[in-house]
Amino acid sequence: MLHQVRRGLVVIRMPFQPELSQQHGYFHAGGLSAIADSAGGYAGFTLLPEDSSVLTVEFKLNLLNPAQGDFVESIGRVVKGGRTLTVCQLGVFSSKGERWVQAAIGQQTLICMQNRER
Amino acid sequence: MLHQVRRGLVVIRMPFQPELSQQHGYFHAGGLSAIADSAGGYAGFTLLPEDSSVLTVEFKLNLLNPAQGDFVESIGRVVKGGRTLTVCQLGVFSSKGERWVQAAIGQQTLICMQNRER
Amino acid sequence: MLHQVRRGLVVIRMPFQPELSQQHGYFHAGGLSAIADSAGGYAGFTLLPEDSSVLTVEFKLNLLNPAQGDFVESIGRVVKGGRTLTVCQLGVFSSKGERWVQAAIGQQTLICMQNRER
Amino acid sequence: MLHQVRRGLVVIRMPFQPELSQQHGYFHAGGLSAIADSAGGYAGFTLLPEDSSVLTVEFKLNLLNPAQGDFVESIGRVVKGGRTLTVCQLGVFSSKGERWVQAAIGQQTLICMQNRER
Repeated sequence: MLHQVRRGLVVIRMPFQPELSQQHGYFHAGGLSAIADSAGGYAGFTLLPEDSSVLTVEFKLNLLNPAQGDFVESIGRVVKGGRTLTVCQLGVFSSKGERWVQAAIGQQTLICMQNRER
Repeated sequence: MLHQVRRGLVVIRMPFQPELSQQHGYFHAGGLSAIADSAGGYAGFTLLPEDSSVLTVEFKLNLLNPAQGDFVESIGRVVKGGRTLTVCQLGVFSSKGERWVQAAIGQQTLICMQNRER
Repeated sequence: MLHQVRRGLVVIRMPFQPELSQQHGYFHAGGLSAIADSAGGYAGFTLLPEDSSVLTVEFKLNLLNPAQGDFVESIGRVVKGGRTLTVCQLGVFSSKGERWVQAAIGQQTLICMQNRER
Repeated sequence: MLHQVRRGLVVIRMPFQPELSQQHGYFHAGGLSAIADSAGGYAGFTLLPEDSSVLTVEFKLNLLNPAQGDFVESIGRVVKGGRTLTVCQLGVFSSKGERWVQAAIGQQTLICMQNRER
């Protein structure tokens, strides 16, 4: 599922599955949120010390177009990394043959945990 | 899964299932997003004409506490209904025996569709 | 301008001034954002140690109704306080005589600073 | 104040003024919100019919770095335009001599009004 991992950038790809679709045959918004959140979380994690873990503080997603097709890809990119907080941009795209459509765009705040209370 | 439906307010309850949990045994953030988004969408729908449908324009979620226990409940409540747009508040709570914990709080914008382009 | 201060709750009141209004005579969205952000920031501050300061990490505002009238009030209320992060709910209301209208609703994340890098 | 206007992209520049700064001499968050919101609103407006007007439905801003220096610039860029709704990305940058710093990043939803209730 991890399609690409660079420092500060992670791409997750998820093939279409009937159980992830809603009544109209599109990918369900909950599934899109899940992979958008995960891509951002992993992107933040690439910039953190190895013994740390990362938690989502908050995220916001604008749904732009219905996500349908063969698979859906989510990109998380670190915009600002810090010792405590990391801010990511999120993008979700769906692919049908050659055609790509942007399904969602988002912003996310992560916190780096090192045995410290949130 | 629809636990309570009133005009402008919907509660969704979801029992704990191993496949909805992440590595630490908590409900996965993606699953929480999905039921938060759904509760708001249904809440908005209770105030709309019957021949219409509702789409999520955007939502934002702050994750407050880990969600664990027997089940998780999401509340969607309409704050402002309009002919085109509806704004909802979202709350996600988890229950372990008698103890309730607020897992997330959110805000959501919906659009009412009547065969009209978004 | 601070109208009410309790532990975890602050109300800010701002009288109408021509220079805060936009072309239609309503309070300008920028001004509403400013007092919403401030009310949340002060609310978070009421729960923190005295030698600390508070910074806004992010906030999100839904504009519900035009804000007009004699004054505008913003309420910041702490939903979840922590050692590092605080989450607040924001409400903005405008008053014209006896009539109150909710102008905006929001959510905000704050970080407590004690000589530590963000 | 409008520094650059293209189809779907607007840049607003605001010189530093003491009355726009807060206690530490930085640009005040309320002022940053105001120009971020305005840049997005104008960017959306460039793609709409002439007899229409544009209202902010909601926006979300992550504050990344303190904004200080000679002036501050806000960029609004349309990500998805539609007949009813428009989604913009917002960026706020401050400049001190040759050095640019990103002060904020945001997302915004606009609605196009043509004598229609929101």
